[in-house]
Amino acid sequence: MLNRVRSAVAHLVSSGGTSSQRPKSPDLPNATSAPPAAAETPKSPPARPGSEVGAPPKTAETRTSFSRPTFLQLSPGGLRRADDHAGRAVQSPPDTGRRLPWSTGYAEVINAGKSRHNEDQACCEVVCVESRSSVTGASRESIRNQGLCFHYWGLFDGHAGGGAAEMASRLLHRHIREQLKDLVEILQDPLPPPLCLPSTPGTPSFSDPSHLVSPQSCWSPQKEVTHESLVVGAIENAFQLMDEQMARERRGHQVEGGCCALVVVYLLGKMYVANAGDSRAIIIRNGDIIPMSREFTPETERQRLQLLGFLKPELLGSEFTHLEFPRRIQPKELGQRMLYRDQNMTGWAYKKIELEDLRFPLVCGEGKKARVMATIGVTRGLGDHNLKVCSSTLPIKPFLSCFPEVRVYDLTQYEHCPDDVLVLGTDGLWDVTNDREVAATVDRVLSTYEPNDPSRYTALAQALVLGARGTPRDRGWRLPNNKLGSGDDISVFVIPLGGPGSYS
Amino acid sequence: MLNRVRSAVAHLVSSGGTSSQRPKSPDLPNATSAPPAAAETPKSPPARPGSEVGAPPKTAETRTSFSRPTFLQLSPGGLRRADDHAGRAVQSPPDTGRRLPWSTGYAEVINAGKSRHNEDQACCEVVCVESRSSVTGASRESIRNQGLCFHYWGLFDGHAGGGAAEMASRLLHRHIREQLKDLVEILQDPLPPPLCLPSTPGTPSFSDPSHLVSPQSCWSPQKEVTHESLVVGAIENAFQLMDEQMARERRGHQVEGGCCALVVVYLLGKMYVANAGDSRAIIIRNGDIIPMSREFTPETERQRLQLLGFLKPELLGSEFTHLEFPRRIQPKELGQRMLYRDQNMTGWAYKKIELEDLRFPLVCGEGKKARVMATIGVTRGLGDHNLKVCSSTLPIKPFLSCFPEVRVYDLTQYEHCPDDVLVLGTDGLWDVTNDREVAATVDRVLSTYEPNDPSRYTALAQALVLGARGTPRDRGWRLPNNKLGSGDDISVFVIPLGGPGSYS
Repeated sequence: MLNRVRSAVAHLVSSGGTSSQRPKSPDLPNATSAPPAAAETPKSPPARPGSEVGAPPKTAETRTSFSRPTFLQLSPGGLRRADDHAGRAVQSPPDTGRRLPWSTGYAEVINAGKSRHNEDQACCEVVCVESRSSVTGASRESIRNQGLCFHYWGLFDGHAGGGAAEMASRLLHRHIREQLKDLVEILQDPLPPPLCLPSTPGTPSFSDPSHLVSPQSCWSPQKEVTHESLVVGAIENAFQLMDEQMARERRGHQVEGGCCALVVVYLLGKMYVANAGDSRAIIIRNGDIIPMSREFTPETERQRLQLLGFLKPELLGSEFTHLEFPRRIQPKELGQRMLYRDQNMTGWAYKKIELEDLRFPLVCGEGKKARVMATIGVTRGLGDHNLKVCSSTLPIKPFLSCFPEVRVYDLTQYEHCPDDVLVLGTDGLWDVTNDREVAATVDRVLSTYEPNDPSRYTALAQALVLGARGTPRDRGWRLPNNKLGSGDDISVFVIPLGGPGSYS
Repeated sequence: MLNRVRSAVAHLVSSGGTSSQRPKSPDLPNATSAPPAAAETPKSPPARPGSEVGAPPKTAETRTSFSRPTFLQLSPGGLRRADDHAGRAVQSPPDTGRRLPWSTGYAEVINAGKSRHNEDQACCEVVCVESRSSVTGASRESIRNQGLCFHYWGLFDGHAGGGAAEMASRLLHRHIREQLKDLVEILQDPLPPPLCLPSTPGTPSFSDPSHLVSPQSCWSPQKEVTHESLVVGAIENAFQLMDEQMARERRGHQVEGGCCALVVVYLLGKMYVANAGDSRAIIIRNGDIIPMSREFTPETERQRLQLLGFLKPELLGSEFTHLEFPRRIQPKELGQRMLYRDQNMTGWAYKKIELEDLRFPLVCGEGKKARVMATIGVTRGLGDHNLKVCSSTLPIKPFLSCFPEVRVYDLTQYEHCPDDVLVLGTDGLWDVTNDREVAATVDRVLSTYEPNDPSRYTALAQALVLGARGTPRDRGWRLPNNKLGSGDDISVFVIPLGGPGSYS
């Protein structure tokens, strides 16, 4: 996530020119700091139960000045190679030993020197959920047999430092587990979820008749709430609790910066794809492309941002206007009529330029250059609690949302073949590769491997990363068509939907 | 638009039961009141030029206690028949004399006794736009030859009285015309629209170099603004100015109630379909259904409404909570855990019930029974400036939006046959008829007429209205499948996209 955070507003406001300033990327928490993952038990908001993230690991981890996903199993030498901007070696889990669940493929590459370390992080886990009301001591194995585990994949694209991405990669799935703890019995019961539960989380809910309130006492027919929507709500709240934990712990653990989060939860036959940021997930099924996320940027969220600025003008200080203009207005243009867009508009109209319109627009620029408050190019994600407009005390966080959009894909609804995959990639992939090109690479690479060869998905992830990175020529990393490859960090998961070892 | 506004909150809050109260429908302004259409020149907001609606008609109209669209050419006897709840005769323009432009079909029927008069209104016009900068005295004919006219169709579904719908049917197209006056030359120029115009609206814009600002002075590449987006912006602002005019004139002209507005503007080869409310527009092309609008209801706009209540809690008074619950909470359930949805959530989760949660939810109910503040079932439209929560001074208008969603259909991109039509209907049609059934009726009716018979579109509109109304049996209006037909007002336009006389 390079060039995603700019501290250029002062320069822009004063000169009217295009800034070339880049984000400063502070180091990750150093080796002597406690692992943010588990050092503190997050405090749950009083009214929302079940938000305690599990106990800290028994031994403190020793960490280098930067880290890569543990499943890469990097030696100290491998870690140095992964951190080499000149070589930009593609990293994947070793072909020996334990594979990732479902034979998931993974590959990543560091950026071309734009930030000191790779600010992407990733996580792939099988997470077992113990019911808050279950008998203490139930073995993990028995829980696994009851199907109360979920599979989890997460990509975290950091900006302005790798701290938030690293913390999220270590903790977000634990927040999801906590949110699911109250739902273990409910999700396994074929009956619709009870609308009301007794106050004590430990009490089994089904002996309580409060969810059988007679229809007469209701102001309208009861809304039917599905099991699926409970899982969606659990993931949404886990994102919020993760973000709140980052806010609390940012000083103690140097959790600087922020990150986009793209997460997949497989639970009871369904894939829940949750996206907050500008990473992307697509399914390739029988050659067809099924989008499983959309990107949240200043352009796609313009109206949400403008509405907030309009309703809460104090968030704009005296520096910004919530109106959008197609270019910077010059003071000499006062009184003339300029095209603008208000928060309710998708079209453009002319308005007479007034003094307030000379302020900097809350949302400006296009495509990868679009920015909120001339600073950040992504509008959802975790962290960024310290982010301020340059040369100002104006916080940007109120305009950012930590809530993901969750899309659900029912794996049981389709017969999947070994070539059907879910591809997750950070924006480093998608900046230079479109969905169709990814689908073509899926077809090309998988067809050269036996369907039951579990290494084919890692080979595919590597091909996708290599194809987006390019090779070093002249002063840039070039693609075969001589276009510039991505100089950004790139991380890719390839999750087979019907391959050997799936759902294991 | 029946049952769209309820004044039932007090009853609901006190009893927890389902209310059977209905909206009170005040009469339209009576015959002695000045026609709201043109009696006052609307005041434009200071910073937005060109919002003056044209001069009043030269003679004051004599109006009965209710009115129907002038293109129906109803005699006093016909007007009485159109107002007869028992007969529910389907009304259409006469088959003799001047047809509607494009041989547009139209049909309507009054409700089955739920409100005193038909609260739907309709308008179909060819509107000529004179440039603000053009030489005074340019003849209408010369403007028409230059193609500076637009075709206009509007359906207005009133609630809590017919005043807003009638006013909108007489004035909204004039507001659109006013907004387009500044754009006459710009829309005809193949160059991209200038970003900045001189301050005097009368000065031709193209002699002014201000839109040729050198790129160096811009903070980013200039955003490209299309001609199409200018028309969209003009329509959006026209809706807002119409709503503001209603707010100003509501007392003087008894503009009570509100209305949904579904409007089509055909200009320079494109159809602009603007919808604010729960009417619906679909195109049937070669048997395929192309949705041209979506409905704005408490359910579809839940998150927008909740966000507003969250950011501006003063709008909720002490009666409402912005949280959504799947049913009414009983005081005895305090401390238990209830399913809820917050403004950022699409899924559900459990929360401990606190005292504030006993307030009435801002958004409650499902489907046609969904309500904002237990009062209104539609969330976009014009008017409703006086609407208050029952037994309270709490205004509901802040939660309603007057802005339409505008979709654009380029007529020049397809070859259309005489059976391709755009169907506009108020919710009376869509409550009992789905898109596929409408497409089947289009096919069935049009195939019985010669392709060049201009009366086929009116016959189709009549068939659609009849099919949704049903016939009087027992105590209801029944459909052939014995389901209840719509007891609501129903109005339908059928606009041929490739038929004889099209685009004339």
